[in-house]
Amino acid sequence: MDKIDWKPDPSSSIPLYQQIEGFMKEKITSGEWTVGMKLPSQRALAAAFQVNRSTLIMALEHLTSQGYIAGKSGGGTTIIHHQPERQWESPPPPNWNAYVEDGVHYPNLPTIQTINRMEFDPTMIRLGTGELSPELLPQEQVRLLFAELARQHMPLGYEEALGTYALRSQVSAHLQRVGISAPPSTILIVSGSLQAFQLISAGLLEKGSTMLLEKPSYLYSIHAFQSAGMKLIGLPMDESGLQVSHVERFKRQYDASLLYTIPTFHNPTGTVMSDKRRRDLLETSLRIGLPILEDGAYEELWFGHEAPPPPLRALDTQGQVLYVGTMSKIVSPGLRIGWVVGPQPVIERLADIKMQTDYGSSSLSQAAAAEWFGAGWHAEHCRTIRRQLKERRDCMLQLLDAHWSNLATWSTPQGGFYIWVTLHANISMAALFEHALKRGILINPGYIYDRSAKKQLRLSFAYAGLDEMERAMIELSILIRHIHCLSV
Amino acid sequence: MDKIDWKPDPSSSIPLYQQIEGFMKEKITSGEWTVGMKLPSQRALAAAFQVNRSTLIMALEHLTSQGYIAGKSGGGTTIIHHQPERQWESPPPPNWNAYVEDGVHYPNLPTIQTINRMEFDPTMIRLGTGELSPELLPQEQVRLLFAELARQHMPLGYEEALGTYALRSQVSAHLQRVGISAPPSTILIVSGSLQAFQLISAGLLEKGSTMLLEKPSYLYSIHAFQSAGMKLIGLPMDESGLQVSHVERFKRQYDASLLYTIPTFHNPTGTVMSDKRRRDLLETSLRIGLPILEDGAYEELWFGHEAPPPPLRALDTQGQVLYVGTMSKIVSPGLRIGWVVGPQPVIERLADIKMQTDYGSSSLSQAAAAEWFGAGWHAEHCRTIRRQLKERRDCMLQLLDAHWSNLATWSTPQGGFYIWVTLHANISMAALFEHALKRGILINPGYIYDRSAKKQLRLSFAYAGLDEMERAMIELSILIRHIHCLSV
Repeated sequence: MDKIDWKPDPSSSIPLYQQIEGFMKEKITSGEWTVGMKLPSQRALAAAFQVNRSTLIMALEHLTSQGYIAGKSGGGTTIIHHQPERQWESPPPPNWNAYVEDGVHYPNLPTIQTINRMEFDPTMIRLGTGELSPELLPQEQVRLLFAELARQHMPLGYEEALGTYALRSQVSAHLQRVGISAPPSTILIVSGSLQAFQLISAGLLEKGSTMLLEKPSYLYSIHAFQSAGMKLIGLPMDESGLQVSHVERFKRQYDASLLYTIPTFHNPTGTVMSDKRRRDLLETSLRIGLPILEDGAYEELWFGHEAPPPPLRALDTQGQVLYVGTMSKIVSPGLRIGWVVGPQPVIERLADIKMQTDYGSSSLSQAAAAEWFGAGWHAEHCRTIRRQLKERRDCMLQLLDAHWSNLATWSTPQGGFYIWVTLHANISMAALFEHALKRGILINPGYIYDRSAKKQLRLSFAYAGLDEMERAMIELSILIRHIHCLSV
Repeated sequence: MDKIDWKPDPSSSIPLYQQIEGFMKEKITSGEWTVGMKLPSQRALAAAFQVNRSTLIMALEHLTSQGYIAGKSGGGTTIIHHQPERQWESPPPPNWNAYVEDGVHYPNLPTIQTINRMEFDPTMIRLGTGELSPELLPQEQVRLLFAELARQHMPLGYEEALGTYALRSQVSAHLQRVGISAPPSTILIVSGSLQAFQLISAGLLEKGSTMLLEKPSYLYSIHAFQSAGMKLIGLPMDESGLQVSHVERFKRQYDASLLYTIPTFHNPTGTVMSDKRRRDLLETSLRIGLPILEDGAYEELWFGHEAPPPPLRALDTQGQVLYVGTMSKIVSPGLRIGWVVGPQPVIERLADIKMQTDYGSSSLSQAAAAEWFGAGWHAEHCRTIRRQLKERRDCMLQLLDAHWSNLATWSTPQGGFYIWVTLHANISMAALFEHALKRGILINPGYIYDRSAKKQLRLSFAYAGLDEMERAMIELSILIRHIHCLSV
């Protein structure tokens, strides 16, 4: 094989691995690279293309799956076909594509699919991601925790339907600290809060039920409820949270079964529901018989000196509120551990469905989570994260002031991950998304949280590094001006 | 508090913890034990009741959740109410019970709910459990694996929708050993095979679709497909597996969309589909356009000198077969790691739904699974497990010969976990289940795998210890005779 003197173009909108895949495919189908020929090592190829190895591996994997090349167990990769394998080229009989279109479940929105995919491209600056930056995750503590687990009896069998007693006890004690009194038997361990929503949608709601929720809301961006045939009706918000005065009328008008809310550091707007609003909401919910599903994902991430008002669940004396919490926003999304708190019959029903869904959450993850709380790392880690998130928020606010002040207005969140930005100009958010993507910047347009939020953007200060943040915010401001000029 | 001289009755049908709960509740509601009184330590209580601590904790937990007692952070448990908290006693407003009955998802059968619950009672002899005995799980290797992971970079973030590349590569190499050629891009990591079925049911099948499957089948005992509105139609089996001659007629008659099969060491019958039958099935499936969902859970658990015939997926040149595998039956159910192999568009569709369901499987579990295969422990562990399972099978066959020969006939499985027993007498299997439960023996009646299997029983030799097995098999034989006498 001759020396490779071609390199992918980092400024192109085509991902690097696709460019490499295309280049190699051409060499192979043209016959320039012949069947039986051995490719250079991954290291050598990555060096030749000036990409990192994971990018190269992705390209090789695609070529493998199309039947052009094959890895050998003794090492090395060989060209095995000039043509793609028939099996992968045209839909194989039976026509699986018909099946792919047939399922009950909605596919994700194309924008969300793109975001899900591009979040794994390490070259992207992720300015919308609802996830802590890897450098904020407690690497060192988890390493210690693993070492500790290695000394204990390994939990390798199935676990109780509600989750391990050890973890439920720890979660119970943890919840006590935010004012929620929940014995272990009223707690169900789930694989992240998204699964909690899936279980609630499958286990508690009739098909065709209606849920009220904030508008905009995170829940619009996932299909947990819509795919099960539920309708979502958005309630207007103000700076104190959702407007409770509308709840009774909406409940009547739409025959709503449940109200979903993120009262603290709301996703995507960052709003905190005031204490008075919380009490009003509970009173209304009780009076009109509308139970509440409370999402406490960002609860502990406050930046000021005081914690936000207590969760609805803490104020609830009548069992009105199902509460969902998660480890993903503070400790580790990869653990896939969250919990639902509620009246025992509800929790037991959800546990039964959980058993039917996946026979319980990973016992390794449950053991690690129990060890995390048990070792007492949580409180200090929270303090660290709060401090660091506040710095990041301040940085992003400075960048907004410096570069976006003529372009937009925005919220100043007192906690959580997000700044909700409203552009002055009426530009196509889809176009901004696409152009930003071409420049290696991933943003979350407002319309994935509310179809009518055409001028909004959810910026996250949790993920990108400060340098990346600055570069991306400046580049985006230029893009916005540019798209605006083209469209007027 | 006076010395406690009452003890729960181990021969009662009421679980020990419920007896303790009842005893303590009476003491508290009668006022004999007063509010503010401190209970003895858990250790002391467990000793007084002569139960192990987990049983005691379960009783205390129930009392806590009903508001009678509360744990103090300084240690110790105190009586706080004479009456159950109103909130837990009557259905709280809003009436969650209405919601509990409303969900889309079917609840598990009562028998299955009982099995799921009683499997966590450590005093039960589990004679039906489809799970390796804890002593067969690779405790020591996993301990080493954890120690190794503690030295690596911790995977704490979200993972790719398909699962980590590291694990998919390992699974790809693993599948190669059973003859299945599957590049990593055609593999989706799931949280156990049950989740694979959930994803396939939500992602590939229209509501109201029909699936063909063996009769009996494991699939009847779970609701993955039925809850999503699918119909299951059972195909007759013989000693070579499902009778392929019926497939075309059934497909036409019921307009079936998919055929589910466990060709190797079938659950619950232990049958192996012959090589010829496999080729016939593939040929028929291709000709009539009926794709196959192959469950390879027991694939590697053969007892003879030779592996069983290759999986259908290994013989499939046309992309007819979706293959599902799992780590639960050989390595660890607690890991919750399995995989689906299929054409790329199908895998990508399933991955999209997986992202909507739980944002991917635990990254700890994925890292542990990749390390397991990477460290090369799998092959040797398989050999150990095969040898031990064979011993256990032989033991159970001896017990059957010695104590059941006048009562039943049974299969002699060449691998897997199960012996399918058919009783001569027409006794109520539900009654046998209940009576066995009272004697601390948990069995899986045939009717959970096929409603018409009224005289069958799935015995598992994988879980119970050999001593327990003997005791339970003798006790069951007496019970069967006893119930038969009562019923004639």
